[in-house]
Amino acid sequence: MSSIKIGICGLGTVGYGSYTVLKNNSLELARRVGREVVVSHIGTRQLRSGQDIGNTRLSSDVFAVVNDPEVDIVLELMGGTDVAKKLVLQAIANGKHVVTANKALIAVHGNEIFAAAAAKKVMVAYEASVAGGIPIIKAIREGLAGNSIQWLAGIINGTGNFILTEMREKHRAFADVLKEAQALGYAEADPTFDIEGIDAAHKLTILASIAFGIPLQFEKTYTEGISRLTQEDIHYADELGYRIKHLGISRKTPNGIELRVHPTLIDEESLLANVNGVMNAVMVNGDAVGSTLYYGAGAGAAPTASAVVADIIDVARMISSPESSVPALAFQDDSLSDVAILPMDDVVSAYYLRITAVDRAGVLADITEVLGECQINIEAIIQKEPRGADAANQQVPVIILTREIREAVMNDAIKRIENLDAVAEKVMRIRVFKIAD
Amino acid sequence: MSSIKIGICGLGTVGYGSYTVLKNNSLELARRVGREVVVSHIGTRQLRSGQDIGNTRLSSDVFAVVNDPEVDIVLELMGGTDVAKKLVLQAIANGKHVVTANKALIAVHGNEIFAAAAAKKVMVAYEASVAGGIPIIKAIREGLAGNSIQWLAGIINGTGNFILTEMREKHRAFADVLKEAQALGYAEADPTFDIEGIDAAHKLTILASIAFGIPLQFEKTYTEGISRLTQEDIHYADELGYRIKHLGISRKTPNGIELRVHPTLIDEESLLANVNGVMNAVMVNGDAVGSTLYYGAGAGAAPTASAVVADIIDVARMISSPESSVPALAFQDDSLSDVAILPMDDVVSAYYLRITAVDRAGVLADITEVLGECQINIEAIIQKEPRGADAANQQVPVIILTREIREAVMNDAIKRIENLDAVAEKVMRIRVFKIAD
Repeated sequence: MSSIKIGICGLGTVGYGSYTVLKNNSLELARRVGREVVVSHIGTRQLRSGQDIGNTRLSSDVFAVVNDPEVDIVLELMGGTDVAKKLVLQAIANGKHVVTANKALIAVHGNEIFAAAAAKKVMVAYEASVAGGIPIIKAIREGLAGNSIQWLAGIINGTGNFILTEMREKHRAFADVLKEAQALGYAEADPTFDIEGIDAAHKLTILASIAFGIPLQFEKTYTEGISRLTQEDIHYADELGYRIKHLGISRKTPNGIELRVHPTLIDEESLLANVNGVMNAVMVNGDAVGSTLYYGAGAGAAPTASAVVADIIDVARMISSPESSVPALAFQDDSLSDVAILPMDDVVSAYYLRITAVDRAGVLADITEVLGECQINIEAIIQKEPRGADAANQQVPVIILTREIREAVMNDAIKRIENLDAVAEKVMRIRVFKIAD
Repeated sequence: MSSIKIGICGLGTVGYGSYTVLKNNSLELARRVGREVVVSHIGTRQLRSGQDIGNTRLSSDVFAVVNDPEVDIVLELMGGTDVAKKLVLQAIANGKHVVTANKALIAVHGNEIFAAAAAKKVMVAYEASVAGGIPIIKAIREGLAGNSIQWLAGIINGTGNFILTEMREKHRAFADVLKEAQALGYAEADPTFDIEGIDAAHKLTILASIAFGIPLQFEKTYTEGISRLTQEDIHYADELGYRIKHLGISRKTPNGIELRVHPTLIDEESLLANVNGVMNAVMVNGDAVGSTLYYGAGAGAAPTASAVVADIIDVARMISSPESSVPALAFQDDSLSDVAILPMDDVVSAYYLRITAVDRAGVLADITEVLGECQINIEAIIQKEPRGADAANQQVPVIILTREIREAVMNDAIKRIENLDAVAEKVMRIRVFKIAD
């Protein structure tokens, strides 16, 4: 079967990131779609230094990609609303499917674009336009489709969240953090879209539309930025038990649907309050499911590419075999992998050990000697005074946090510790999981 | 166009919950699918008191539903693995699509069931089998399809998480909380599946399979429950900066894939550590997207029904018009709703106000008088001593947290406060959002 051909318009960080993910995960992609997916044409004014596209066809005019009869799916990754709109409408007119990461384009011109796409029976997919790699469009549009959505509230601008987090955690002033965000590449040279809430309003417009089944109405979104917030406000909010977050909120009320972006106090105990740095999160409340939350990286080349490629797979599957559904176990039935399950003995983990020992000299030395002989390193020890009503029974708990080691080695060490004369009970062992989030 | 006919097998809490959601949201469902979706046949030994199914056809034998030529989609909501397996295979043999919430069935017999379904070209959807209403199957299988998944870790048994949360927050013993969980209906009379990790292992088996593209291998999952955990362990974990959670973990390593369920220490600052009570959450790490988190209710009639109905919509769309994709804005183009956007003036919110006032007698009285006249109730006030180096400039911040009021009323009140002689600067106003999660 012939491969599915992708044309990329715009090779900035997201464009090149998508190109890279498509190339790196090409095997897994074929296993998912049941057909090869290849980038056949790239349109960009010129390659940046370090960009390597092999012998993929390159045009300096993005319209050459859209008009290439070979291309099945056009990726619009240029940004902006003028050329991008013309390009997308041309792609649709040419009968091509479109995948875009362009929130402004969808929020402002989406109604027109979707109407054109419906008329030509092509797909316009835009998962990457909201909250980067978090599959929030899919979650609301399909995953929660059984619900009548009641409200949603999200941290959907990473730059703004980074600024608010730094202001709170490091007691820094708004202008100071903004400069750092620009230096780090989180904020544009003109940061207006981020800090005045326009970017968040674009995204909220899209989320509200799919949640409530209403047309895109960016112009009706109330938008207030974070540039007026001070250290004082963050401090007083803390004192009252709240965090200040820049939220996009849309809620169904008997009189209409709320559509608003502004700084917001939320209870410090809520999950949204604890979403920090450049991370995004959206809470969606449905009548059946209650509140659900979706969290992840809201921007960046690779996370955005993750969403772009997911859209490509959806479209490619539809082109490839419209009558067949997503494979039951994610990959096509004939390409399940037979990679081994790791035996528990070979799992590597850090461990918490609670050892109940008789309180006499040398016990701790005996225990640490066993660990040392097993090459198990200790990260922390807590040794407590004898506890409990029965003071005559001089047993003390020794708590040890170890560094990472193979499970089999730990099993052996535990057996040896349990055999020590001074150790009275079975050792309580709990594994530690280090999350890099 | 004729409607799509659903047959429900098993009318317990999930079955009746699904029936109810299908009925309550029937209009939205038709707007999403483009065709009516109706329950045409229910199989259950007998209706429970309070169950009202109108004049829907009722059979005491669930196989009558599966063999009903009218039925397009069979919902298997009985639980168990023996009759359920026979029923699902019979439905497939009859050419019907199947939606199930049965994790044990999928984890243990899924390979066989999916092979049968592929041979008959029918769908078997099982979103409800893992993490209740959270669309985690869809997120991993489709939303993160562009990634090579690195690892996932989840709190996927609500009963276990409820017990651990109560043990920690209320210093209660395991056995004591277990009894309460049983009284509350969270835990079964025989709680073995929940507290010994078998239920979590079923779910982890499914998640790992779709994340890594491997066959279902429940028998290879390492499973350890929470029944041995003591108050002491929870206390010491706290002291070390950790929480104990019952996690299902699957990770790709060079030597194979880890598949393990056990009590786990995780950093108290991580989002997973802060998922409490009966809530579920799954963290999924992909090479492109990084870490993402999905949070929501993991059990209960309505949340599970939410997932069942989402699956029904996926299947119904595929039956209805395989060549057309999910509607761009979630609902069929001709059925977007023209419900109004609520003007900002009509939004009701609680407010944080920071008022900079001259520090003299009567100022606070003037401010509260304005609020009183506007019928704005006060929830909290903070009034501080004069701050700043310039002690001669006797200005003090007054922070007021109000109860809910219409925005227009608040705008008016702020104007009047700013007009007070003693008020020096513009009032800083931040809205408060109350999240019921």
